[in-house]
Amino acid sequence: MIKQAMERRGLIDALLAGDGFADIVLRGGQVVNTLTREIYPADVAIKGSRILMAGDARELVGPDTTVVDVEGMTISPGFIDSHMHFESSMLTVTEFSRLSIPSGTTTLIADPHEIGNALGPAGMKAMADEAGQVPNHVRLVVPALVPDCPALETAGADVSSGDMEDLLGYPNIVGIGELQGFSLARHVYQNTPEIVTDLVASTTYASSTGRVVDGNAPGLSGAELAAHIIAAGGRTSCHETTTKAECMEKLRQGVHVFMREGSTQKNMAECVRAVTEEGMDSRRCILATDDMLAGDLKTLGHMNEIIRRTIRQGVAPAEAIQMATSNPAAYFGLRDRGAIVPGAAADLAIISDLEEMRVEAVFLAGRLAAYRGELLLRLPPYRYPEEVRHSVKRGAVREEELAIHASGAEAVGRCIVAIPDQNLTETREVPLRVSRGQVQCDVSRDVLYMAVVERYGRRGGIGKCFVSGLGIQNGAIAESVAHDTHNIVAAGSSLRDLTAAVNRVIELGGGLAVARDGRILGELRLPVGGLITDELTGEEVAARMEQLERLVREQLGGTLHAPFMHLSFLALSTSPKWKLTDWGLVDVEAFRILEPVV
Amino acid sequence: MIKQAMERRGLIDALLAGDGFADIVLRGGQVVNTLTREIYPADVAIKGSRILMAGDARELVGPDTTVVDVEGMTISPGFIDSHMHFESSMLTVTEFSRLSIPSGTTTLIADPHEIGNALGPAGMKAMADEAGQVPNHVRLVVPALVPDCPALETAGADVSSGDMEDLLGYPNIVGIGELQGFSLARHVYQNTPEIVTDLVASTTYASSTGRVVDGNAPGLSGAELAAHIIAAGGRTSCHETTTKAECMEKLRQGVHVFMREGSTQKNMAECVRAVTEEGMDSRRCILATDDMLAGDLKTLGHMNEIIRRTIRQGVAPAEAIQMATSNPAAYFGLRDRGAIVPGAAADLAIISDLEEMRVEAVFLAGRLAAYRGELLLRLPPYRYPEEVRHSVKRGAVREEELAIHASGAEAVGRCIVAIPDQNLTETREVPLRVSRGQVQCDVSRDVLYMAVVERYGRRGGIGKCFVSGLGIQNGAIAESVAHDTHNIVAAGSSLRDLTAAVNRVIELGGGLAVARDGRILGELRLPVGGLITDELTGEEVAARMEQLERLVREQLGGTLHAPFMHLSFLALSTSPKWKLTDWGLVDVEAFRILEPVV
Repeated sequence: MIKQAMERRGLIDALLAGDGFADIVLRGGQVVNTLTREIYPADVAIKGSRILMAGDARELVGPDTTVVDVEGMTISPGFIDSHMHFESSMLTVTEFSRLSIPSGTTTLIADPHEIGNALGPAGMKAMADEAGQVPNHVRLVVPALVPDCPALETAGADVSSGDMEDLLGYPNIVGIGELQGFSLARHVYQNTPEIVTDLVASTTYASSTGRVVDGNAPGLSGAELAAHIIAAGGRTSCHETTTKAECMEKLRQGVHVFMREGSTQKNMAECVRAVTEEGMDSRRCILATDDMLAGDLKTLGHMNEIIRRTIRQGVAPAEAIQMATSNPAAYFGLRDRGAIVPGAAADLAIISDLEEMRVEAVFLAGRLAAYRGELLLRLPPYRYPEEVRHSVKRGAVREEELAIHASGAEAVGRCIVAIPDQNLTETREVPLRVSRGQVQCDVSRDVLYMAVVERYGRRGGIGKCFVSGLGIQNGAIAESVAHDTHNIVAAGSSLRDLTAAVNRVIELGGGLAVARDGRILGELRLPVGGLITDELTGEEVAARMEQLERLVREQLGGTLHAPFMHLSFLALSTSPKWKLTDWGLVDVEAFRILEPVV
Repeated sequence: MIKQAMERRGLIDALLAGDGFADIVLRGGQVVNTLTREIYPADVAIKGSRILMAGDARELVGPDTTVVDVEGMTISPGFIDSHMHFESSMLTVTEFSRLSIPSGTTTLIADPHEIGNALGPAGMKAMADEAGQVPNHVRLVVPALVPDCPALETAGADVSSGDMEDLLGYPNIVGIGELQGFSLARHVYQNTPEIVTDLVASTTYASSTGRVVDGNAPGLSGAELAAHIIAAGGRTSCHETTTKAECMEKLRQGVHVFMREGSTQKNMAECVRAVTEEGMDSRRCILATDDMLAGDLKTLGHMNEIIRRTIRQGVAPAEAIQMATSNPAAYFGLRDRGAIVPGAAADLAIISDLEEMRVEAVFLAGRLAAYRGELLLRLPPYRYPEEVRHSVKRGAVREEELAIHASGAEAVGRCIVAIPDQNLTETREVPLRVSRGQVQCDVSRDVLYMAVVERYGRRGGIGKCFVSGLGIQNGAIAESVAHDTHNIVAAGSSLRDLTAAVNRVIELGGGLAVARDGRILGELRLPVGGLITDELTGEEVAARMEQLERLVREQLGGTLHAPFMHLSFLALSTSPKWKLTDWGLVDVEAFRILEPVV
């Protein structure tokens, strides 16, 4: 605090002493004012890591001031991604930032609920530690409940209200993240009311101590939406709003709608119609990506690209930029971010083409951090401590353990049906042959084996069922990325390959594996929680993922464009209709476990 | 916190249990959505002190639900006055609230810097205690510095950064109020740089612990404005913005502009042109009164009247209402106020005529609190503790002490010139007759005696000069309301009357007095800090003030419509050009004391 006070005193000196000047003045550009929603000519004066002022800064130019000519450029506050998971990129905070900073994205609010499921508070604290090392502004909002459904699945550790004081007091952790465990409000209320009580205890602690509480209310409406909002403490967000009508209702109920537009889910165009068509005040409309893949960050950009798409939907540039600057800053209480005003952090995106959101240069804390897509800062690779690098705590599985048993010659198998580009699934009951007591999959009818293997050395269970929609003809894939508990999920055309793939992931200590004919064709080691690599760069991960996906497509006959991503969501116990956890096949809406055969 | 969690749990039960219902449903009205800036038909369901939801609430009507037909009415969140001083009304929080609540004003953010000058932290805490007793939501923002100019005046107690932790931790105190001591940023910086350091220490403590810090930057621009903003911690407000251009600059620099519109200063119409003419985003435009007199509260109303005038300036009703609800709620971090959303406080204004802002009924915490201007709640009179009822700590003054001395037959006296309806003054140097070593006033040229008598038993000084503009022909007035230190200020046509008036105020233990021909014609006792009465109702104070002002007009020949108000501001050492404190005549812009004769 003393440091902060001295910094402020120094800024005042620079402004009033007469012999104090700016370090840098950006001269001749246009400034995006994210508070008044204007764009107008103004200089920007910077001292140390802070904005001195935007306006006529001639008197702040001294003999040692660096004057940068930015004529023809537009200066925006650095962008904020308000809801994202580093784990989706499989990258460390550092490697993600390396790809993200050149896009002008200077603040990331990350929800570490994946690593939280794998490693509990220790994993989230390890990520918070890394967040403190990077030059961009990274803060975490942590889950109040791990696993999402304690009655239906096993995570690597449990998190509940008793952990909140410890977690929310940890450096770089600023609030509670998505309330996944109450996204099906009525079901949770009816089936596990004690969870509601515990969540409310957590959110009340968080909100009464001034912290943010994200919600997550996909599809909720009316009284159920109201209950979700109240459970979150009354001031909340949702990042899974998919229709205009849903967006309108949520904005009217005070929800900050995080209009999601990431690598996998694209909901912004639909949501933003509440603004473009209905003229609603957009102050609670916020852009977020949720999940970004390394390859997309590299080739498309990050928040600049999301803003560009928002402008394409008919939103004026200044208003679209508000959705990624001042609006989220207000929501998260980031007092010194989101606007170019005196005393704010000098995190800036210098834009050469506003409609295309082409970012020419990026300033971070008053330093030139990136120029024309190239990072200028040196970010040393971050190595995670050993204690979070060993999350797989079980021995190999045997084929027999992955088999689904039935008597007789035929059985009706329950089959999850994957839907391209959705977390939701359909369901299918299909007659299958039984041989030596084992129900056989049927590749000809796109029915594969599927398993979720508990990997934390806790309950030790294996959930089993059948799956359609992946299109695999020959072979199996397995991964320790399996939302949200991140046990090992696998699918394949034979028990032999299924077993090989699962066991390879176990040997790797977490990761992805592709098997055919009993051999491993490809793999990616994810040593940190079985979710993240701290051994590869973003470029290397992108290349490796492309290779693995090509293998699945070309060698296994897979038909989905992102087979590992889709497979990982078939374990997500909070999104309908059927999902597979280590406890077994979950009928999400009925909140119960089904047998894999009828 | 446990109580809060249980309350939330109870609301969730009412929404989801199937057999839980609303206590009250307001049916058939229009709702002002202060987040989406819309007005549309919706029911409002209330449970206990909270909003359950707004929308279709049919399913929340149970056998014990009170359904209120509000057809033809508009339901707004209760209004917020974001910057006001109870002391200006001379009323206790309780008596002020009694007059304010029926106007639909349900939240008051009060700056107790008057009582803080008179009584220091003890006085502000006493007011904070009272704030906790009233049914409306009253919170205090306290001064970081008392007196405003430690080098030029004496207050009843001193407040500085060392007091912040204690004060900001006190119940019902939520931040730092107006930074009066840095309203002349460059002057303060040049003359008392140690004050800047101390203010920054206070504001850094406040902002880094999540508290609000109001600023006050009348007339500041460019680097000086930027310095003021940074001194306030970067996120601040100003309630003394008077021109459209000033408003535009402040909004652009991120200042929350409290467009003032109270009993004395009326700046809203000018400020709001930044919105109506320039189309600026109004999210940081906020309505506030600063000073409201009891009589105006009674006859005109409170925030409803200010909103009405804002609508008259061409602002749409929903946007004008945002300026007194959701905008200030966001600024002050009032998470459960300013919008009718699930979990919010059920503080509502039911409006029968939106353009006229006629308030039919008011709900406070889910209870009907007022109907057609009549308060329905019982507010017991509040009696302040003895220790804050004795702020005048000096004996009577002698005529001789109030005299201005000079040798010779003539002297050039320095004369403050009061300007109607302004805090600013002009200056005048006028030749005056000297008799028996005393400089004589000259009623024929509107030159009166003026004095400020230190009343706290500290320095004991008496500041003296001459004054024009009050128009008094015969007699004197004195009062213990004298911004901001609230010593006893007096002006009159003879030393005899001046002395009589001052001594009557001392005898009263604080208050107002009118003297003529050595006799006291009228008076008002203000026992709490010499500023507030806890003995009279708002109606009684309004009547008494009317009587005293009539006396000044009819018996003394005074020409100003609010002589006591004007006189009290002639002591305000932070607004140019000349002011009188107990230290003497202050040349505000030069930051020095002048002799009363040249």
